[in-house]
Amino acid sequence: MDIQSLSERISLQDRRAIAQAISVVENDSREAASLLHDLAPKLGNAYRIGITGPPGAGKSTLTSEMTKALRKQGKTVGIIAIDPTSPFTGGALLGDRIRMQDVSMDKGVFVRSMATRGSLGGLSAKAKDAADILDAAGFDIVIFETVGVGQSELDIAKAADTTIVVLVPESGDAVQAMKSGLMEIADFFVLNKSDREGAEQAVRALKTILTFRITHAEDEWIPDVISTVASKAKGIDEVLAEIERHEAHLLKTDTLIKRRVAREHDRIIELVESFLRVDFWTPERTKKLEERLKNVASHKESSYEVAQDLVSEFRGK
Amino acid sequence: MDIQSLSERISLQDRRAIAQAISVVENDSREAASLLHDLAPKLGNAYRIGITGPPGAGKSTLTSEMTKALRKQGKTVGIIAIDPTSPFTGGALLGDRIRMQDVSMDKGVFVRSMATRGSLGGLSAKAKDAADILDAAGFDIVIFETVGVGQSELDIAKAADTTIVVLVPESGDAVQAMKSGLMEIADFFVLNKSDREGAEQAVRALKTILTFRITHAEDEWIPDVISTVASKAKGIDEVLAEIERHEAHLLKTDTLIKRRVAREHDRIIELVESFLRVDFWTPERTKKLEERLKNVASHKESSYEVAQDLVSEFRGK
Repeated sequence: MDIQSLSERISLQDRRAIAQAISVVENDSREAASLLHDLAPKLGNAYRIGITGPPGAGKSTLTSEMTKALRKQGKTVGIIAIDPTSPFTGGALLGDRIRMQDVSMDKGVFVRSMATRGSLGGLSAKAKDAADILDAAGFDIVIFETVGVGQSELDIAKAADTTIVVLVPESGDAVQAMKSGLMEIADFFVLNKSDREGAEQAVRALKTILTFRITHAEDEWIPDVISTVASKAKGIDEVLAEIERHEAHLLKTDTLIKRRVAREHDRIIELVESFLRVDFWTPERTKKLEERLKNVASHKESSYEVAQDLVSEFRGK
Repeated sequence: MDIQSLSERISLQDRRAIAQAISVVENDSREAASLLHDLAPKLGNAYRIGITGPPGAGKSTLTSEMTKALRKQGKTVGIIAIDPTSPFTGGALLGDRIRMQDVSMDKGVFVRSMATRGSLGGLSAKAKDAADILDAAGFDIVIFETVGVGQSELDIAKAADTTIVVLVPESGDAVQAMKSGLMEIADFFVLNKSDREGAEQAVRALKTILTFRITHAEDEWIPDVISTVASKAKGIDEVLAEIERHEAHLLKTDTLIKRRVAREHDRIIELVESFLRVDFWTPERTKKLEERLKNVASHKESSYEVAQDLVSEFRGK
């Protein structure tokens, strides 16, 4: 593949080139490396928004309504939707994607669904690469939409400049958010389906929990709770206003660049692990592992010993 | 620490030694390696059960009731409860652990809560080590209880001989289970809180989805759905009977040993990654990363280039 011409076509917002480039990062890490290298000077313009929360909170609907509102402001939007894959369906569940359709016919919107075929760890890296491609292509806004329950999905959410955690009024949701680590990554909360019973109490519960987080530093960002009914397009402007308020805060406190550097830091670590994995598991070493597994199965040696020996040999000791 | 004496005390079911050993695997991978090596010949007797499912499904209550019933059968039970940690609470949420209290006073039961302080990846390996310690200590049954939503928590569930996915009748739960990968790992389902509205429909929906999985091989295991009300100790004997039926199936089809070997295979791969991580990130290499991050921040180079160079240098190229 001619990576250089692909990279040029991406800068020209060629939709086929963008789609092709995302397939490159999904499939081949060596070509991805050279593509991302070419795109490096074109990065840094897109504002990245992470939308996460438990299944069924209405994240796709919210993303879709936010996108429509952003388009009215004249902004272009790239969306990366992370779908846990089931071998049954072989890809994203249809329902969520159908909701996206009304925005995906718009030329100023690019929607890409990425599924967790293998490990989520790998997906997290690939989602960030896809965001870079959309950034280099000149989209004003890049949205990551993930089901925020696993560590790696939290990692994707953290790859954003502003991370929104979407919850619903059902009892216990705030406590569950706290348990699953969503609380720590939220720059603000959206309480969606807020026309349902218990919405007011849920907002109050969330705000109570959030007060524990405030350390009273002068320039501290205080996460707020915004109520929406995404299916009726209610509260969307308030969500966008809160994103702008957060962006302004990041710029004022000089933390936007710090966040972005921290993000690349984590990414380099992820890439190192994936490169080492490829280097390590040669066919020979895989065969050695298989042979010694027999000893582990018969309790003659421990998995620790086998792993240590394989690593020592790799390092030439 | 005297690992050899620790290992001997574990075989004698010394509870303090068991607790201490689990702390060793939580804290120090080198001491853990030597401990697990010592314990290797004593492994293979415990039957390992994974209990997972979405937050709020009643996994702790089910685990607690199953443990009481197993004790009545004269079996000893070791429980490893995996709790996502919040920096707010600094550990496991109290509620879940309180429910465990009525079983944890029993000498034939050992409960250990492990929290996800850092990465879940590391926790998954440590939970398996803890299971080995309980196995070596002679517990008849080892139960992993996890909130089954992330990839790494699914990994822990897969470390079991029989994996149970707990759901509740609330609408959409079956679809969510399908989306989050729980469907593939379940040896059978428990529909807990089955006295709630919609329980019958939920069982029917689950069974319909499960029919898609059957490939009609003669010795195929067909996952069933067991209804329980764990808070009223209803359906517990049926769950234990289903576990026995599954164990008998694994033995008959010669797959128990295959499952266990596959488990050690995955574990060696996990250990290799953690050993490589420690070897790689020396203070010098960490410093090099920090320096080159500046170039990435100013879009002069890509994270890919930095990662590749660091890996090349590590491999002595």
